[in-house]
Amino acid sequence: MIKPIAAAVLLALTTVSAQAVEFVLTESSSGQDVGNWQVSSQSLGIKTDTAFRLEKRRLHGGKQEGVDVLVVNNGVMEITLVPTRGMGIYQVKSGDLRLGWDSPVKEIVNPAFIDLESRNGLGWLDGFNEMMVRCGYEWTGHPGVDDNGQLLSLHGRAQNTPASTVKVIIDDAAPHTIHVQGMVAEHTFKKTNLTTLTELSVTPGSRTFEIHDRLTNQADYADEYQIIYHSNFGTPILEEGAQVTAAASEISPFNDYAKAGLKGWQTYQGPTKDYDEMVFNLKPIGDAQGHSLAVLHNKAGNLGVAVGYNVKQLPVLTLWKNTDTKQQGYVTGIEPGTSYAYNTKYQRPLGLVPTIQPGETKSFDLSYTLLRSADDTRQALAEVARIQGKQATQQVEKPLVDLSKH
Amino acid sequence: MIKPIAAAVLLALTTVSAQAVEFVLTESSSGQDVGNWQVSSQSLGIKTDTAFRLEKRRLHGGKQEGVDVLVVNNGVMEITLVPTRGMGIYQVKSGDLRLGWDSPVKEIVNPAFIDLESRNGLGWLDGFNEMMVRCGYEWTGHPGVDDNGQLLSLHGRAQNTPASTVKVIIDDAAPHTIHVQGMVAEHTFKKTNLTTLTELSVTPGSRTFEIHDRLTNQADYADEYQIIYHSNFGTPILEEGAQVTAAASEISPFNDYAKAGLKGWQTYQGPTKDYDEMVFNLKPIGDAQGHSLAVLHNKAGNLGVAVGYNVKQLPVLTLWKNTDTKQQGYVTGIEPGTSYAYNTKYQRPLGLVPTIQPGETKSFDLSYTLLRSADDTRQALAEVARIQGKQATQQVEKPLVDLSKH
Amino acid sequence: MIKPIAAAVLLALTTVSAQAVEFVLTESSSGQDVGNWQVSSQSLGIKTDTAFRLEKRRLHGGKQEGVDVLVVNNGVMEITLVPTRGMGIYQVKSGDLRLGWDSPVKEIVNPAFIDLESRNGLGWLDGFNEMMVRCGYEWTGHPGVDDNGQLLSLHGRAQNTPASTVKVIIDDAAPHTIHVQGMVAEHTFKKTNLTTLTELSVTPGSRTFEIHDRLTNQADYADEYQIIYHSNFGTPILEEGAQVTAAASEISPFNDYAKAGLKGWQTYQGPTKDYDEMVFNLKPIGDAQGHSLAVLHNKAGNLGVAVGYNVKQLPVLTLWKNTDTKQQGYVTGIEPGTSYAYNTKYQRPLGLVPTIQPGETKSFDLSYTLLRSADDTRQALAEVARIQGKQATQQVEKPLVDLSKH
Repeated sequence: MIKPIAAAVLLALTTVSAQAVEFVLTESSSGQDVGNWQVSSQSLGIKTDTAFRLEKRRLHGGKQEGVDVLVVNNGVMEITLVPTRGMGIYQVKSGDLRLGWDSPVKEIVNPAFIDLESRNGLGWLDGFNEMMVRCGYEWTGHPGVDDNGQLLSLHGRAQNTPASTVKVIIDDAAPHTIHVQGMVAEHTFKKTNLTTLTELSVTPGSRTFEIHDRLTNQADYADEYQIIYHSNFGTPILEEGAQVTAAASEISPFNDYAKAGLKGWQTYQGPTKDYDEMVFNLKPIGDAQGHSLAVLHNKAGNLGVAVGYNVKQLPVLTLWKNTDTKQQGYVTGIEPGTSYAYNTKYQRPLGLVPTIQPGETKSFDLSYTLLRSADDTRQALAEVARIQGKQATQQVEKPLVDLSKH
Repeated sequence: MIKPIAAAVLLALTTVSAQAVEFVLTESSSGQDVGNWQVSSQSLGIKTDTAFRLEKRRLHGGKQEGVDVLVVNNGVMEITLVPTRGMGIYQVKSGDLRLGWDSPVKEIVNPAFIDLESRNGLGWLDGFNEMMVRCGYEWTGHPGVDDNGQLLSLHGRAQNTPASTVKVIIDDAAPHTIHVQGMVAEHTFKKTNLTTLTELSVTPGSRTFEIHDRLTNQADYADEYQIIYHSNFGTPILEEGAQVTAAASEISPFNDYAKAGLKGWQTYQGPTKDYDEMVFNLKPIGDAQGHSLAVLHNKAGNLGVAVGYNVKQLPVLTLWKNTDTKQQGYVTGIEPGTSYAYNTKYQRPLGLVPTIQPGETKSFDLSYTLLRSADDTRQALAEVARIQGKQATQQVEKPLVDLSKH
Repeated sequence: MIKPIAAAVLLALTTVSAQAVEFVLTESSSGQDVGNWQVSSQSLGIKTDTAFRLEKRRLHGGKQEGVDVLVVNNGVMEITLVPTRGMGIYQVKSGDLRLGWDSPVKEIVNPAFIDLESRNGLGWLDGFNEMMVRCGYEWTGHPGVDDNGQLLSLHGRAQNTPASTVKVIIDDAAPHTIHVQGMVAEHTFKKTNLTTLTELSVTPGSRTFEIHDRLTNQADYADEYQIIYHSNFGTPILEEGAQVTAAASEISPFNDYAKAGLKGWQTYQGPTKDYDEMVFNLKPIGDAQGHSLAVLHNKAGNLGVAVGYNVKQLPVLTLWKNTDTKQQGYVTGIEPGTSYAYNTKYQRPLGLVPTIQPGETKSFDLSYTLLRSADDTRQALAEVARIQGKQATQQVEKPLVDLSKH
């Protein structure tokens, strides 16, 4: 058992089991929050090849007043989580490599300052700047009035919901994997009772981190749900000549505008004025276990990221190419999901608005691996090729939804 | 005069009069808040048969970040008030008895995270979990676009308005009644200038607490106002076979759906899937002073609550039977008001949208009494019978408003 | 160089140059805020004829919970700035003279509690009580659905945007001018990337303070912008018989209702029931440098304010006469702007919705001078007369926009 240092963990420590040490940083059921907080392998007396440290810090200034960030440094990567914004991942830094992007939104915005229904349901754009955003779970997709007359705002409410509980669990045994758990509650009387136990796991010294989310329908009634893991990458990975590769059986343009980009979908332009965004709908292929992979890398192939997910959990993949100018937000999204980015009402006929039964739990598991060399990238691309097998990725010209009719 | 203990009251103390000791906990005019705070009969050097204590505490976690609760323990009951949510009463606990309910909304939500106009005016449901909610005062009732084109969101804005001032006043003389005052301001330039001085009073050792609210129209123009005291009870009082009794001359269903429940309106079902809610409109009877009473008790009749109010102040009574499943929120509401739960535009023709003149003050006085034995319940029911007299409660099949026409 | 006193400036101090001492009070890029803070000429060891002091303080209570105010006392005036509300000026006090007004909104409202789109876009009215409000910069004017289908809420978003950075800079050399800079960011992905570096400058002992704002379009695309400097004055300047004078070539009523007040536009009524508001559109005249001036003074002419601005930056002037009753908010607005108070869609055809190019910066410079004697007033009126020259102010009966057609 790891012996915690009293001074460092006095407020947060709840359990020291035989298997792990657990720190409760925030817990709404007791109304507690630990405030600014930090631990490290050193403060915990853990002997590892790679030292690690974690720090929770409250931000100030502008619309980020009162936002908590939790920085996990595993010795290789520095991962910035945002408990106040639904446990989203703001960015990951590892030497010259950065997962994340430069949004015109510079602050990590407190949801208290966001009105999701503003601008006809585009209020979510006031805070969008993270590397990984959970778009869900009550609904996802572009804003629009649903069949029942209710405006569904862009990409749901989870990302603008402060986490109800935040825990850090560090395994007692080597390799001392670090788990950050955050509970995100979408609870509205008579409307929704969805709770998501999010988890980020990372091992000291590893260049991979994993997401293990568990969505539970606490209601006594079945409910619809949707989720897109909106994973966003800009420089230094994204650049003119950068490439995306994904195990997929089919790709089609989201709308008429994206048709022009279908043929060259795997290659990126540099920052391009008036490009706006092209979005593509992919049908991913999984291996026998459902495991699929998408890889994004720079032109030279020595910087990149591999996004792993499971098509049994997340059956579709959206590719968002927003290679407009730098100031506009030069970024691409690799977005595994239950659903594409259409408004919910257009996805029901496609069978992409699944149901969760009373008490049921749905799992979503993803992995993000840093590619820091040509070897790393070759290895990841080989894995995509293995999953893809001999099947071609069919290019379909016609969008799944004819938006011109709506 | 009670001599306050310096350490406990240093920040909060403002006045020690010959009659009472007064603690100003929050005062927006000076921009001050006392922070976490507590006093007790012991710390104040008050000799009482029943010791009491009060504590103000700031909550953290999720959407309750920054919410203040004020817990009043009079030795018999522990009353949790929520200054940040319009001085609402979250719950009252007394041994096995609890006034309150289990909403799917678990946190005490900071209004900063609520957009009342979301979901076509149903944003209020994001925070609804209290035992007593003030639905008013600018308007009340179901959401809808008023005749002037403005969306009136569900049940008005008072409950999602943080109290501008919070005071605790403890009478110097026995029985040392505790008064908690909170000022709730509904102030919008050119639109409304209503101020409500809310007050909860409770005597150490008593099983009754009282509400004395004073609504003042600070404007130079007459204004409409509406208020419903939405008083909500779940387990352990509510159960299959629980009973409600109210002094009333008439009851009618709120809508067509409630017609099926008219005959058996006094009895409750257990948690019932697909029940949703049945709402009934009652015309209460008051005694010569206007005093009326409604009683809710469990099947055995040894746990319950009596809700007293005055029909000269609050001329109508809504009965809300939401005996759906446990997770959905198994709860009933006993709701004295100026108005029923229809949208304001439907209540004007019924004469249920009263006017308050410039500078005028309207008073609303209610009492809540814990019934902890069969004797307590018998006594309360006898009081209802006394007020009811020989008049029957007429059952009217036709709803007051024909919603199908709208 | 001024030697700062360590204790007073420890947290805030960033730069002590040869020219000035600079205190960073808030900086969102580093997530820092200095908290409660103060300095004075004495604490800084500055020898001046007129002592000065500055204090930043966090407010509590009601909807002002968490609001920061920054009070600048230059020995003559006490200026209350509100960083949390877009660096607006709440009030200026100088002996018996006060710039500001008595709104029914009493608290300095945290934008977290405001939903700008509520009441069909009138949510701004929930917080309106300042002496100077920036109505902009993405849009300004009355609420309405723009040609693209988006609701533009009343007077834009800047005033309800907490400042991202707040700095105090005090010149090293006499007269030791104090500069308060606040950065206000209107950043929404794909929608707007406007940043305004606001500055208030005041010299110890002076009865004038200046605004120097710099609006920069950080986007790679040209954007529309609008700004009105909504400057509001009530008692003691405003009273029956108070007078307004402005260098202008033309005045016309905003709407049909204001036609009745056109002739007597320069004179004010006392608080008048059912007056509501009359608004007038003026075409101001500037001198060779573009400098223009408007003067408001009381009946006796010994209390007033002179508002200076530049017609090359702010080509139009709105005069808002809201001489309704005291409780309703007895106030007049002198409002230099790029635009009048019509909804944006009505101002485009008038050429009053200017464009800002990528990377371009627009400057807005205003001055406010206290008039504390008949001499002060005479001097200011003479300056207006000098600018006006021999040109008459033509009274045009027809409003610029025919609102009856819309």
